[in-house]
Amino acid sequence: MTTAPSRDQIADQIAAELGHSFAGEMLAGGHYVPIVRDGHTIYTSGQVPRVGDAVSLEKAREGAQICALRCLTLLRRELGSLDGVEKVLRVGVFVQCTADFTQQSEVADAASDLLHRVFGDAGVHVRTAVGVYQLPKNASVELEMTAVAKGDKA
Amino acid sequence: MTTAPSRDQIADQIAAELGHSFAGEMLAGGHYVPIVRDGHTIYTSGQVPRVGDAVSLEKAREGAQICALRCLTLLRRELGSLDGVEKVLRVGVFVQCTADFTQQSEVADAASDLLHRVFGDAGVHVRTAVGVYQLPKNASVELEMTAVAKGDKA
Amino acid sequence: MTTAPSRDQIADQIAAELGHSFAGEMLAGGHYVPIVRDGHTIYTSGQVPRVGDAVSLEKAREGAQICALRCLTLLRRELGSLDGVEKVLRVGVFVQCTADFTQQSEVADAASDLLHRVFGDAGVHVRTAVGVYQLPKNASVELEMTAVAKGDKA
Repeated sequence: MTTAPSRDQIADQIAAELGHSFAGEMLAGGHYVPIVRDGHTIYTSGQVPRVGDAVSLEKAREGAQICALRCLTLLRRELGSLDGVEKVLRVGVFVQCTADFTQQSEVADAASDLLHRVFGDAGVHVRTAVGVYQLPKNASVELEMTAVAKGDKA
Repeated sequence: MTTAPSRDQIADQIAAELGHSFAGEMLAGGHYVPIVRDGHTIYTSGQVPRVGDAVSLEKAREGAQICALRCLTLLRRELGSLDGVEKVLRVGVFVQCTADFTQQSEVADAASDLLHRVFGDAGVHVRTAVGVYQLPKNASVELEMTAVAKGDKA
Repeated sequence: MTTAPSRDQIADQIAAELGHSFAGEMLAGGHYVPIVRDGHTIYTSGQVPRVGDAVSLEKAREGAQICALRCLTLLRRELGSLDGVEKVLRVGVFVQCTADFTQQSEVADAASDLLHRVFGDAGVHVRTAVGVYQLPKNASVELEMTAVAKGDKA
């Protein structure tokens, strides 16, 4: 008899597929923090992948997945487990692009699909994706997330 | 004896003026949704007009109005009527532009004016407008909205 | 015997260092407002400095500080004093930049450091910083803020 994998296990599995570990590398430099909570609403800072400039749609999609996983790692540390997430509310995706690149949605889809894979219906969110001129550290993509924690409303 | 038009009627009238119908076309592709609600707070996904690249300020302003109407259509479906909106909180406007275009505020004004026309004081919001390099589907403008629903706070 | 300066005094001091006064100039044109409150959550409109296009990292950082001070001025007017702020939740920073400028985080740091100087731990926020193609009025930087007011949750 097998049980369905937990959200944490699914996130770990996706991270392994992407060849990434998120242990101990979530520090924000300076006077801001990677995650903040107001009541049940949790906001992450914009996350960038620790990889170089993407040169293809596929690489940018992988970058979006890594950003999403970084946000999930932050949520997990905040809540103990991704099981503490009631739902993902919103994702903002900023894609570094050339003037003729109009597939920002396809890049963002990689993150949205990942969230659905981990959370199912609880991962279905609103989203804004735009193409920007440049990003910190020449990142290909930056992603911010707003989520709601489980529990009685205070 | 006449009565003032309802918010829904005003929104319909503006849509008719712009030559747009919003019936049945609000689907988001993939694993995200066009609107999500957390308690009384409602967020829309970034909306783009279904028209081509704008080439003038006037066309970009029309695009912003269409985006705003799309958000109103989403709110109306969520709440049954725009009368269910307590107030519009925030609008984010991303304008695709050339390097020397600095009238992002004038583009966003078209959406803000529309919201005031529909909601009156309840439509007065905070706003961030920026000029971006490119948008999904080569859209001229993308607009996201946060609103609050009427009712007792849960 | 001396007492530590208040948040309001610190903000005034930073404004004086930057040579800026924020009396009477916080109007938003058109049908939007510079600040809006929903329960205890307060959102500002994106603020731009009233200075010209930045040409150096140092000037952009000064612009970010001015934007942050403008947001604090709005919060102070809303709440009577910055002592009414429970915490700063989120800052969004849009930096107008060239294609090879990747120090958006360093620009945003100037605002984050200022918030820490004024609020201490209560000023530590999440942050998203991106490089955009153009901003209203050719501004070098635009900054929006979300904060929480003190008081019993309604």
